[in-house]
Amino acid sequence: MKIYAVGLGPGDMAYLAPGAKEAIKRSDVVVGYTSYIKLIPDLLAGKEAISTGMRSEAKRCQAAIDEALQGKVVSVVCSGDAGVYGMAGLLFELVEARHVEAEVEIEVVPGITAATAAAAVLGSPLTNDFAVISLSDLLTPWEVIEKRLNAAALSDMVVCLYNPQSSKRSDYLSRAVQIVMQYREASTVCGYVRNAFRGESQSERVCTLEALPDEPVDMLTTVIIGNSDTRVIAGKMVTARGYRITDIDEG
Amino acid sequence: MKIYAVGLGPGDMAYLAPGAKEAIKRSDVVVGYTSYIKLIPDLLAGKEAISTGMRSEAKRCQAAIDEALQGKVVSVVCSGDAGVYGMAGLLFELVEARHVEAEVEIEVVPGITAATAAAAVLGSPLTNDFAVISLSDLLTPWEVIEKRLNAAALSDMVVCLYNPQSSKRSDYLSRAVQIVMQYREASTVCGYVRNAFRGESQSERVCTLEALPDEPVDMLTTVIIGNSDTRVIAGKMVTARGYRITDIDEG
Repeated sequence: MKIYAVGLGPGDMAYLAPGAKEAIKRSDVVVGYTSYIKLIPDLLAGKEAISTGMRSEAKRCQAAIDEALQGKVVSVVCSGDAGVYGMAGLLFELVEARHVEAEVEIEVVPGITAATAAAAVLGSPLTNDFAVISLSDLLTPWEVIEKRLNAAALSDMVVCLYNPQSSKRSDYLSRAVQIVMQYREASTVCGYVRNAFRGESQSERVCTLEALPDEPVDMLTTVIIGNSDTRVIAGKMVTARGYRITDIDEG
Repeated sequence: MKIYAVGLGPGDMAYLAPGAKEAIKRSDVVVGYTSYIKLIPDLLAGKEAISTGMRSEAKRCQAAIDEALQGKVVSVVCSGDAGVYGMAGLLFELVEARHVEAEVEIEVVPGITAATAAAAVLGSPLTNDFAVISLSDLLTPWEVIEKRLNAAALSDMVVCLYNPQSSKRSDYLSRAVQIVMQYREASTVCGYVRNAFRGESQSERVCTLEALPDEPVDMLTTVIIGNSDTRVIAGKMVTARGYRITDIDEG
């Protein structure tokens, strides 16, 4: 049968797409990390809900595939977009490993990912080319992450960092900043948002690249490092795209 | 007064966030490119709508600022996310140029951007680090775009291309592919989506890097170039994240 991989967006129901709601409503079973399942109590009426702790991504996906193989329609929910460091890829990998591609159809339902949610809160830092890089080395070797940070920094792309830091990896953001500082001014405009669009719990700040390692950044935070065109306008973080006065006059 | 920079998402109302609808409803004036304004006729009842052709981004933003300075609440709408190559940055730039930062507040309302919309249609190509690069050299010199393509390719990031080609720039995608081919196999899995989530008009295809320049790609198309971990599963484009069997067993 069918599995929907559903991105719930940043968390506020105002940013959950109607199409995502519909997919969940059409499902017999909803599978997700406990704190995400809690975001959508109204949608769970009459449905089986399977929720497990953070480190059991594979277990959750296996459970979803088991249910689908029994003929059920399943939604696997996650925050942000299901395809960006989300569950969608893992579902495809597991369906392939179990040789059930023909029996289980996977449909990915897009959501607002943390990069654009954080950018909206900060102003407009992603107005031009950018790289999205996770600092978690659980599944990607640190050397590869370093290579990507170097590449993005030397080519003057804005860099959006997912999973910037955890208690176990308390120096990762500092290491990333050191790499970027080889190419960018210490005064480069940066910003970070914790719990974007989650009401009262949201906090955000615009700061410099140099100051970033000392800021209170954790796994619920998205960090954006500006490029040479990024500046502060009206207290917000804005990457200018280089509209010239002539463009403006010509309109 | 206030300007909302509102991303409408890919176009299908099923992927327009309720929060974006609310911002438009709260507005006296709605400003946008004619074809985007047409997407939201139901939301325009009783409102002034200002729509102009494609090349008048700055004119549209100036008109929005004029209206806001007259005390009105204005929504500037665009497709995808307002902050990704969108109008949000330009609004900030113009408010700064006119020295009206204190009078005009800009609030960015996030939407589902083309990268994640296209990724959902193709499968799950953005499961790991990726770069978003526009091939339009209207506001960014081609040398800078080349540098970024080189950087993203050498560091094995998936690359999502916005504005990949137009009738005036018919060889840009081919030039981009030549750059990436220096670092990646000709057989690298790629995909593209035209009019993602726009009903019948949507078309998509998974192909190889080598074949990409000959595909029918235009300005309404988003192209995703896979990395060394991208493969085809069940006909979809999937970037594997490297979950090992032990992770899966441990769950």
